[in-house]
Amino acid sequence: MARSSAQTHGAQRGLGRFEGFSDAVFAIALTLLIVEIKAPGSPEGPQGYDSLVSAMAGQWREHLALLLCYGVIGAYWLQHHYTGRIYARSDHWFSALNLLFLLAIVVVPYPIRVWCFHLGTPFEPVASVTLTAGLALTACTWMAKWFYGMPGRRIMDERLAPGFLRQMTRRYGLAALIQIAAVPLSVIQPQAGVALALLCVAYFLLPQPKPRYNPGEEPDPGEVTGE
Amino acid sequence: MARSSAQTHGAQRGLGRFEGFSDAVFAIALTLLIVEIKAPGSPEGPQGYDSLVSAMAGQWREHLALLLCYGVIGAYWLQHHYTGRIYARSDHWFSALNLLFLLAIVVVPYPIRVWCFHLGTPFEPVASVTLTAGLALTACTWMAKWFYGMPGRRIMDERLAPGFLRQMTRRYGLAALIQIAAVPLSVIQPQAGVALALLCVAYFLLPQPKPRYNPGEEPDPGEVTGE
Amino acid sequence: MARSSAQTHGAQRGLGRFEGFSDAVFAIALTLLIVEIKAPGSPEGPQGYDSLVSAMAGQWREHLALLLCYGVIGAYWLQHHYTGRIYARSDHWFSALNLLFLLAIVVVPYPIRVWCFHLGTPFEPVASVTLTAGLALTACTWMAKWFYGMPGRRIMDERLAPGFLRQMTRRYGLAALIQIAAVPLSVIQPQAGVALALLCVAYFLLPQPKPRYNPGEEPDPGEVTGE
Amino acid sequence: MARSSAQTHGAQRGLGRFEGFSDAVFAIALTLLIVEIKAPGSPEGPQGYDSLVSAMAGQWREHLALLLCYGVIGAYWLQHHYTGRIYARSDHWFSALNLLFLLAIVVVPYPIRVWCFHLGTPFEPVASVTLTAGLALTACTWMAKWFYGMPGRRIMDERLAPGFLRQMTRRYGLAALIQIAAVPLSVIQPQAGVALALLCVAYFLLPQPKPRYNPGEEPDPGEVTGE
Repeated sequence: MARSSAQTHGAQRGLGRFEGFSDAVFAIALTLLIVEIKAPGSPEGPQGYDSLVSAMAGQWREHLALLLCYGVIGAYWLQHHYTGRIYARSDHWFSALNLLFLLAIVVVPYPIRVWCFHLGTPFEPVASVTLTAGLALTACTWMAKWFYGMPGRRIMDERLAPGFLRQMTRRYGLAALIQIAAVPLSVIQPQAGVALALLCVAYFLLPQPKPRYNPGEEPDPGEVTGE
Repeated sequence: MARSSAQTHGAQRGLGRFEGFSDAVFAIALTLLIVEIKAPGSPEGPQGYDSLVSAMAGQWREHLALLLCYGVIGAYWLQHHYTGRIYARSDHWFSALNLLFLLAIVVVPYPIRVWCFHLGTPFEPVASVTLTAGLALTACTWMAKWFYGMPGRRIMDERLAPGFLRQMTRRYGLAALIQIAAVPLSVIQPQAGVALALLCVAYFLLPQPKPRYNPGEEPDPGEVTGE
Repeated sequence: MARSSAQTHGAQRGLGRFEGFSDAVFAIALTLLIVEIKAPGSPEGPQGYDSLVSAMAGQWREHLALLLCYGVIGAYWLQHHYTGRIYARSDHWFSALNLLFLLAIVVVPYPIRVWCFHLGTPFEPVASVTLTAGLALTACTWMAKWFYGMPGRRIMDERLAPGFLRQMTRRYGLAALIQIAAVPLSVIQPQAGVALALLCVAYFLLPQPKPRYNPGEEPDPGEVTGE
Repeated sequence: MARSSAQTHGAQRGLGRFEGFSDAVFAIALTLLIVEIKAPGSPEGPQGYDSLVSAMAGQWREHLALLLCYGVIGAYWLQHHYTGRIYARSDHWFSALNLLFLLAIVVVPYPIRVWCFHLGTPFEPVASVTLTAGLALTACTWMAKWFYGMPGRRIMDERLAPGFLRQMTRRYGLAALIQIAAVPLSVIQPQAGVALALLCVAYFLLPQPKPRYNPGEEPDPGEVTGE
């Protein structure tokens, strides 16, 4: 029955297709990073060096940029993957907000690279503000998705305990506020602002609390732990 | 039973695989855009500037191109995602038309970039015609898919109300006609033609009407809203 | 039950994961093509032209290469998608042969571009042999997958009628032989060899016969037509 | 029931989404390789040659790099695909370790290219150490995932026979030790170290033993062989 309906009915595949698309953007954003580093001796890479070691070491800004971009995008992917337990459905505006969030993920390597390529140069202050602003904007698009899902829990799993959702709102909201605060801080104290913003992102490499559900509405074990 | 048949039977996964492929093309097209912007100070980016701010501001054409490309491809993705409720199956020619549509999506950054890189230059008129023609061609490939699905609703969900399908045909058809009309308009009035074409695409960032079904054939709630 | 087993059992998702991976390679191969064309006026594109029209027309080799690459990879994707009905499972060596086939798909833009960039130059004869050899190698990797699946129909749908499989073996085999024959032909008559090879690929943009099954083993309608 | 729960419940799709993401990274890493080879005569490719054959042959370092990268990433994909039968679930730290492993996959083309572009030059010894170190690090991230899954088989299929898991631990562990040993060897004997490391990776292009299960816990045939 389920199969034969595939023949004549519109295709609805729950949140799955939506998340497959988002995961693909994350996967590409992470993998494209290597395209920016050209191996020494390759047609577009560094040429005419006396020592291969120093030629590779001379690319430390590219290497640092790759690691930072990977860490930032990876941390957001971990949270995006985690919230797969929280968001239960999607609608037009949630999809549109998600496109905005993915735009931030796609472009975040630009401010990160700007900072890496000006670290220790007279342009570091400006580059630091660029970096913290880029990270703060990314956090804002994340919060836009979160707050859109909140009122009446339009698109969030209705079984989740209100206390759990309040805890996550505080957690994500505080992180966004810290990253916004890092922007003016980086104007005054470039290195402190950058450190604050990056530490805040790094925090989301750590595991988040296990979702708590309303009593009697816990999903069956197979559904929850199969992540 | 369903599992053991996987062992000896050909793999059929409904429209799912088809849409997974299309979604992957969209995801890559959106993410690749960042490759075209090289951060100032990076090996291939702008060099030797006096001010980092002006170096970044000097890349405004790249930034504008990225935003426009993202908006145009994103609007088509939203509609593509939406029509997942309308198309119910696929056949060879629908797959081939879809490849043509995806070709338009893949190449649409070219006319957009041509326009962005000549805005405010003596070449703007030619660039404007290039842009409107590129957008009109993309709209035509979209309509080709739509009209192929219409006669006898070969591949559309048979439960959809005829009135709903007529409404969407008018809507998509009118948009395609406007974008075609924007081409001659951009010959006479470059900026008016471009504005008309871009507004028409931007309109599809807005939500479309909820699908209406024949009485008694509404899909069960879990099937419909799980999008 | 199916759900709770996800908790403790190894993940087996039939041919689905295997094809998802292959489809992703196809999607990326098609989308990456645009990266090779830099819009006139962009930092890496043509500069200092007197006419934008002639600057864009001057990129005709890039445009031709994109269309040819898209057509060739698209034709293989259509066949790859079609054979999703024929292949029923996978094993290690089939996966390895598939990686070889995907390698051919990934690199086929190289010989196509070599030909496009030397069309009408003194290097056209060598470029033509490069193109036909590249297409013939791709066809050979396709046949390797096919013949690996044949003996005892190790990995093909056991319900398929032997006559149908013989028909497809003849069809794919003949196409491979024609493409192999196009290599020596292109040595003698460059343009004839290229035309033969490209026409042979273009033939696979057309629909292939509907799979025929052993009497009484036809899959139920929902399973078959949901493609 | 399963469908209507999609409406209000958080999305849980077992290991599937996790592996779809990993597969996408592999697919992109394999496909991006072609971007590094510019066809002779193309705007960014070799120019002004007397013979097209020698121009293409002059790119042998790029061609070799593509084949080696494809082989190394492909071998890891085959093993990654194979262990889909072994890993049964995921948790936060497993996801994080997997991101680390994917980082190694994404960047491994860099040491491979460094080696290819210095083969037969005075820089070959340094390039050889770079290559073996890159391969050893990749093997270490693979082992980190493996050992994380071992204690108490937190995330591995609980039905697998302990003897089978011990066999695979020896096999993967020995391969990792050989690749680590290849690093000091490549300091003393560059070519021997590189050969040892590459042969060790090539070994994983071969099929691995069929998973063995505890008596009475064998998965039903449809579940196992549908890979």
